[in-house]
Amino acid sequence: MPTSNRRVSRRTLAPLAATAAVALAAPAIAQQSDTVRWRMVSSFPKSLDTLYGAIQTISRVVGELTEGKFVLQPFAAGEIVPPLQVLDAVSNGTVECGHSYSGYYIGKNPALVFDGSVPFGMTPRQHNAWLMYGDGRKLADEIYDSFNVVALPAGNTGGQMFGWFRKELKTPADFQGLKMRTAGFGGKVIAKLGAVPQQIPGGEIYSSLERGTIDACEWVGPYDDEKLGFHKVAKYYYTPGVMELEALLQLFVQKQAWNALPPRYQTALRMACHYAMTEMMAAYDAKNATAIARLVAAGTQLTVLPNDVVKALRGALEAVLDEEAAASPPFKKILENWRQFRADQHRWFSIADTRAEFAVYNSAR
Amino acid sequence: MPTSNRRVSRRTLAPLAATAAVALAAPAIAQQSDTVRWRMVSSFPKSLDTLYGAIQTISRVVGELTEGKFVLQPFAAGEIVPPLQVLDAVSNGTVECGHSYSGYYIGKNPALVFDGSVPFGMTPRQHNAWLMYGDGRKLADEIYDSFNVVALPAGNTGGQMFGWFRKELKTPADFQGLKMRTAGFGGKVIAKLGAVPQQIPGGEIYSSLERGTIDACEWVGPYDDEKLGFHKVAKYYYTPGVMELEALLQLFVQKQAWNALPPRYQTALRMACHYAMTEMMAAYDAKNATAIARLVAAGTQLTVLPNDVVKALRGALEAVLDEEAAASPPFKKILENWRQFRADQHRWFSIADTRAEFAVYNSAR
Repeated sequence: MPTSNRRVSRRTLAPLAATAAVALAAPAIAQQSDTVRWRMVSSFPKSLDTLYGAIQTISRVVGELTEGKFVLQPFAAGEIVPPLQVLDAVSNGTVECGHSYSGYYIGKNPALVFDGSVPFGMTPRQHNAWLMYGDGRKLADEIYDSFNVVALPAGNTGGQMFGWFRKELKTPADFQGLKMRTAGFGGKVIAKLGAVPQQIPGGEIYSSLERGTIDACEWVGPYDDEKLGFHKVAKYYYTPGVMELEALLQLFVQKQAWNALPPRYQTALRMACHYAMTEMMAAYDAKNATAIARLVAAGTQLTVLPNDVVKALRGALEAVLDEEAAASPPFKKILENWRQFRADQHRWFSIADTRAEFAVYNSAR
Repeated sequence: MPTSNRRVSRRTLAPLAATAAVALAAPAIAQQSDTVRWRMVSSFPKSLDTLYGAIQTISRVVGELTEGKFVLQPFAAGEIVPPLQVLDAVSNGTVECGHSYSGYYIGKNPALVFDGSVPFGMTPRQHNAWLMYGDGRKLADEIYDSFNVVALPAGNTGGQMFGWFRKELKTPADFQGLKMRTAGFGGKVIAKLGAVPQQIPGGEIYSSLERGTIDACEWVGPYDDEKLGFHKVAKYYYTPGVMELEALLQLFVQKQAWNALPPRYQTALRMACHYAMTEMMAAYDAKNATAIARLVAAGTQLTVLPNDVVKALRGALEAVLDEEAAASPPFKKILENWRQFRADQHRWFSIADTRAEFAVYNSAR
């Protein structure tokens, strides 16, 4: 999952924060006239159109559902809130809502990883099943409550590639000393194998790879990665993306603002977010499929991770999860529920959908 | 995909049809008062809660989005329209809308199969990508136009099992003379291999299998199949479900009724249908995962189709598609677009998501 760290100054932020506080203090008036105006920030820049596009879709759909009376004004990363402070800004009422990735905030509460993406975790469908028909929603809400926000699923990248490497990765020992740009929880996992994870802003990855400051990087997948030019400075593009079978994005909504909404505006926002989730996955699936062909034509060497590397990563992941659980009873509570659901889902998909897909793809040869 | 053929008499249908005609003739009045009342029929019985549940969800969400002013009254299969005549009933204005499966109507236009489920075709995500970012929506709408309906994606079963067999299926030659209950397009494919497809209503499959009138059947997957009791009369439950990687369900809406809706009711209905799609897949994924464990515990023998059987089915499918295209230029037009999109999607998923899922499932062993 990408991070884009462009900063805004405290001065830029302050006056807008004051305006927001006024807006939040007057929900009764807004409700009487049926018109509600919110600011909606994003953790993503406009240049990453599939990620940033979610708030445009949400704003448009909510407008259509409310005859333009519930207005969500979109702001790109850094315009009024720094990209990695969206949860904070919503939590403290600087803005009413913001589109982001829970995995960015695991420094505040590691259990947020379960509603973002866990390496060797769930696919988008499995995650939805956990939220809608398992205990996922209840468990996630307990965490979001502590941040004073409501979280609405509002996007998913689908599976992400394992990453770009300047040299081939042949054995688990090759992680030793490897400087790899990656974000969040995945960094803890590769660190277990001796790698040195680096959290570098998106705009600086290319030059870091080119200069050799880092040896490898991961961002999202072909469509986004091609824009950032990684194929010009790293030859090997590794699959399978076992570290991120998905990345679920959220719209965080400040709880008081949410509670002050008329019920039909709440449903409108929830539905628009769900639609944005389906739309984003469709966009990535359509665009990645053609981008990968262009990358390969340009000389990128698609390479498959050796099995023992995958197994070493799996072992490291489970060890990291166990360590987090030992340090935090709330993490342990979610982990146990999540692991049971994951086991059932992985068993079922390895019998049915995933097996069928593989059989279909292979039958053409 | 299941079919449930419970019939209703012409007498039951007639007076209600008259009422519907009146309702459709007065859209202007309905619009003035902001209140719109529609009847929404389903091709599915209440006992199949995941399939039938879609219209309950759609009705509830649309109600929430419109403060109860857009009323969709749900009717189960056969209550006012026979289950396999939903498209007809919407097309001719007997009811304003109905939830069904385009694959049921390939007798009217074989190209409807592309917006339902094609054997060796697309997954739910790939189908969404084709509709939202490929030419799928435009091509499908040309067909639906000819039926005087608008079709909104409104459910998906996810992957379905290959089916239940009383004897093992060891080679492609074992299809010779095999009497198998299956619906629609898949029947044409197995017929190419010598099988005798039988379209039998859901409630009669169990007794047909028990009496030996048929040798095999397919319905949906563990959760639905367990209810119907197939495991008591057939031992072998075959995977991979290469014949149905998905079954996309639609809400058909009569075009004049759709055009008479205020724009925000149109968006409300569209969004509710999208939400129902995600919800249905989550329901199947959660419920199938536990049902399969119960079936296996009860003695069901999960069995994998031999590779040469899968290859024979693939060959038969492509031959059937080519024959349909030769007989119908409109079918050919869609087929060519669909095949190109499918090729790109299958290539991409075999590099990325599907490969990653398999690697993750195998890494636990």
